[in-house]
Amino acid sequence: MLKGFHVPLTAKGLSTLNPTPPWHYSCDLLSIEFWANPRAVTAMLPSALSIDPRSEGRASAFFCDWQFSGDNDEYLDPARYQYREFFILLDCLYEEQPVSYCAYMFVDNDAALARGWSEGCPKRIASVYQTRHHAAPSKASPPLAAGSRFAASASANGQRLADALVTLTAPAKDFPEFAQRPIVNLLHYPQLTRRQTAPTIHQLVMNVPRDMRFESPWVGEGHLSLPICYGEEVSDLAPLRCGYGLRASMSYTVDDLRILRDL
Amino acid sequence: MLKGFHVPLTAKGLSTLNPTPPWHYSCDLLSIEFWANPRAVTAMLPSALSIDPRSEGRASAFFCDWQFSGDNDEYLDPARYQYREFFILLDCLYEEQPVSYCAYMFVDNDAALARGWSEGCPKRIASVYQTRHHAAPSKASPPLAAGSRFAASASANGQRLADALVTLTAPAKDFPEFAQRPIVNLLHYPQLTRRQTAPTIHQLVMNVPRDMRFESPWVGEGHLSLPICYGEEVSDLAPLRCGYGLRASMSYTVDDLRILRDL
Amino acid sequence: MLKGFHVPLTAKGLSTLNPTPPWHYSCDLLSIEFWANPRAVTAMLPSALSIDPRSEGRASAFFCDWQFSGDNDEYLDPARYQYREFFILLDCLYEEQPVSYCAYMFVDNDAALARGWSEGCPKRIASVYQTRHHAAPSKASPPLAAGSRFAASASANGQRLADALVTLTAPAKDFPEFAQRPIVNLLHYPQLTRRQTAPTIHQLVMNVPRDMRFESPWVGEGHLSLPICYGEEVSDLAPLRCGYGLRASMSYTVDDLRILRDL
Amino acid sequence: MLKGFHVPLTAKGLSTLNPTPPWHYSCDLLSIEFWANPRAVTAMLPSALSIDPRSEGRASAFFCDWQFSGDNDEYLDPARYQYREFFILLDCLYEEQPVSYCAYMFVDNDAALARGWSEGCPKRIASVYQTRHHAAPSKASPPLAAGSRFAASASANGQRLADALVTLTAPAKDFPEFAQRPIVNLLHYPQLTRRQTAPTIHQLVMNVPRDMRFESPWVGEGHLSLPICYGEEVSDLAPLRCGYGLRASMSYTVDDLRILRDL
Repeated sequence: MLKGFHVPLTAKGLSTLNPTPPWHYSCDLLSIEFWANPRAVTAMLPSALSIDPRSEGRASAFFCDWQFSGDNDEYLDPARYQYREFFILLDCLYEEQPVSYCAYMFVDNDAALARGWSEGCPKRIASVYQTRHHAAPSKASPPLAAGSRFAASASANGQRLADALVTLTAPAKDFPEFAQRPIVNLLHYPQLTRRQTAPTIHQLVMNVPRDMRFESPWVGEGHLSLPICYGEEVSDLAPLRCGYGLRASMSYTVDDLRILRDL
Repeated sequence: MLKGFHVPLTAKGLSTLNPTPPWHYSCDLLSIEFWANPRAVTAMLPSALSIDPRSEGRASAFFCDWQFSGDNDEYLDPARYQYREFFILLDCLYEEQPVSYCAYMFVDNDAALARGWSEGCPKRIASVYQTRHHAAPSKASPPLAAGSRFAASASANGQRLADALVTLTAPAKDFPEFAQRPIVNLLHYPQLTRRQTAPTIHQLVMNVPRDMRFESPWVGEGHLSLPICYGEEVSDLAPLRCGYGLRASMSYTVDDLRILRDL
Repeated sequence: MLKGFHVPLTAKGLSTLNPTPPWHYSCDLLSIEFWANPRAVTAMLPSALSIDPRSEGRASAFFCDWQFSGDNDEYLDPARYQYREFFILLDCLYEEQPVSYCAYMFVDNDAALARGWSEGCPKRIASVYQTRHHAAPSKASPPLAAGSRFAASASANGQRLADALVTLTAPAKDFPEFAQRPIVNLLHYPQLTRRQTAPTIHQLVMNVPRDMRFESPWVGEGHLSLPICYGEEVSDLAPLRCGYGLRASMSYTVDDLRILRDL
Repeated sequence: MLKGFHVPLTAKGLSTLNPTPPWHYSCDLLSIEFWANPRAVTAMLPSALSIDPRSEGRASAFFCDWQFSGDNDEYLDPARYQYREFFILLDCLYEEQPVSYCAYMFVDNDAALARGWSEGCPKRIASVYQTRHHAAPSKASPPLAAGSRFAASASANGQRLADALVTLTAPAKDFPEFAQRPIVNLLHYPQLTRRQTAPTIHQLVMNVPRDMRFESPWVGEGHLSLPICYGEEVSDLAPLRCGYGLRASMSYTVDDLRILRDL
């Protein structure tokens, strides 16, 4: 009996990309609210989702420094499980419910990529960085204080996909609304066999994280740019204008996925 | 209508991890024939496969410097599509047919990882290197000649998984038999939804490459070591003894997959 | 007039590896006190340094997640300037003064490598990771509390050089003594010109950081292993036993170097 | 007595970044001849060099897939010594002799960076890729034939510095003249000690490779772009027009450096 959650399945189950859920996540994050061309947003939505008319093309970009663990102390193997992430969410409606659709997601770690695929996150590999806050005061580390600036960037295959800057203005009691919508993904697994042209999996799913915790949220002004890159179309969502910025810590656990419907 | 073969599916289909097949491959490779503990081989085989009694635990390790292209000149974007690979094949039987089962496979590129998953290859990300041959003579580049040595290594998450050395003895007319068996994979895609514990996909598949070409094959003595690594079990297949080594160029095209059976 | 501190020197001084000092540093760090074979320590010391007889081969390993900035907000370009580091210090004496000699240092960033060389730090490139603490409670992120565990590792060229674990026991008022000695380096720059066999630079130097700040130090039990690696000799300093562990934040500024003597 | 050519100097001399010369090099390369703004070329030249009035701003870009070895079979440790490189040479005059000045050089390996610094090459770390030719025919691998196309790119810190394309037209008997000039570097090592503001080393040097071999050179049309990047000024040399392209194999040995003068 071969063991493991993701491939490779092996005799002992050690080499698998990931342990069986629950999957525990903890991060520092930067987020920027922005407005893209509504036609570009609409063009990126799978059927069964429609643009949120009250949102006027609103979207958000997230940059996360993640630490992951299963139930076997995987956080003590950071070379294998620590990672960084960049993703873009689009405001939209699913059966009149306001949700966010994940249009792009990039990580710098294969275990994270495999977990994401199982949740329908459209992950690719990239290099992602964000300015960090450390406890010891220094010109090299911005304090959690009004006026502090935090930057972030993401690059895939040597091309810069995104640059961001958040300037803090005030602590927040909670996450802003734009960062609180349920996240809907297109879980898609293609079929290589010639006789069957339909993908093996092509369904709309909703993330159902539990035990979500927010800590030390600060809001401020956000700035984001999505440069034009060869062979990429992230820049079609380039901001017409930007809104709030957010800097916070967050944690949650994943051990389930809600399937909304086959497409 | 969203476009792309793998995620992300997008309006124009540019950002997808891979173009729709056909997928064209070209490589220089090193391969080492070896014999693992037959019990360890048996423990790694999915049901429906059995160890080949004539092979006595025979296996092979491959190190490949690949160039990939779809039909849109992807070979001209090497930062996105060029990659290196390490994998281990186990001699076994499927319905009395001699085949090779791919137990482990590692690449250094996400597009290659996604293509591999669609073929059932159990790919993870690693760093893979092999000694190259260049046309200009130098102490830095071994000639294709008797006595020349070529080395290779693979490392995942900062741990050395494999070290290999091939010492050439003579040009070959064709690939040795150990490198010519059909390759069988376990195509496995797990299910995150709690209500359904069975994996979404769990089937035995066979690679069906076409237009396969071998060039400049040289055989020789092979040497392989698979060191013990924390959290990995590749070393359970550590060679009891090694056999032939091979250095060659190879190319083929993939646009189909044969599904053998659901497991 | 070409501009820049390190190469490349250019018309505008933008492409240089580093801005002109001052250089500001901020980090989270893990450190492990350990005792190596005194003969191995002695064999690693340059002339003018001698083993500290009271230390009996004591050494320390550090793993740092750094953020760097010059005076031009370089902390807002983390893709270029953020980095991670692993180094080993050896207790020794310089003219009867207790100091630490930096035997090995590895970073994952070229700007950091170049700055280090200018201070006599013997830097090479490696992959370095440490468990992080985030503000949001989670099984994925250990709290700063008694019993919490933090791990770290370093790997160069795909070989694991070091694995470490620190289990916190109590907050500390200050850094332990082992982490407070002045650091002495061998600033060495070889000569490629045949006619001159002596190195261009070969001198003993002392780091003179200023505005040093420690925050949130916790002490505990330390554990370190330095595995045997092909072509490396870090393992010659493998711990005979380990002592304190430390987890802390630290910051300082560098804009000077004290030259002790030519060797 | 500590051993090693570059740091770290150690008891046995194993951990050093590089063995003592001779250093043997072998590569496949792409090169593109181009013309930059002559004022931008002049602004990049150190004193003692002047723009070549017959060259009108001519420059060349090189992309190399290198294999390195010392005299101890370092080519059998490709994870540590194999590397890729991108550099830009500017036509200029030194005491009326036509030479090339190396304005920028990027590699993906620390041993190569250290060797380069010892030759005065202004190396930084980057990701560099070029289309490869393999012996087995495939849509994934261009033949060495008229009409074949080879591409290359270089990216530093997630920003694309250069994109190139060479379309072969005919085999050549030798390297074109633009790729045959002696290479002059500015060997610069800064001084961190406050009391001494002059750099420790600041001299004009000339590379003196020996046993140079060219194999299988093909010439063709070259195309190069040097995009604008934040914090970089490579793009100031962006081509006004491009000339020849070259695809070849090359090898040589380095064990000396000619010092032209202190600047």
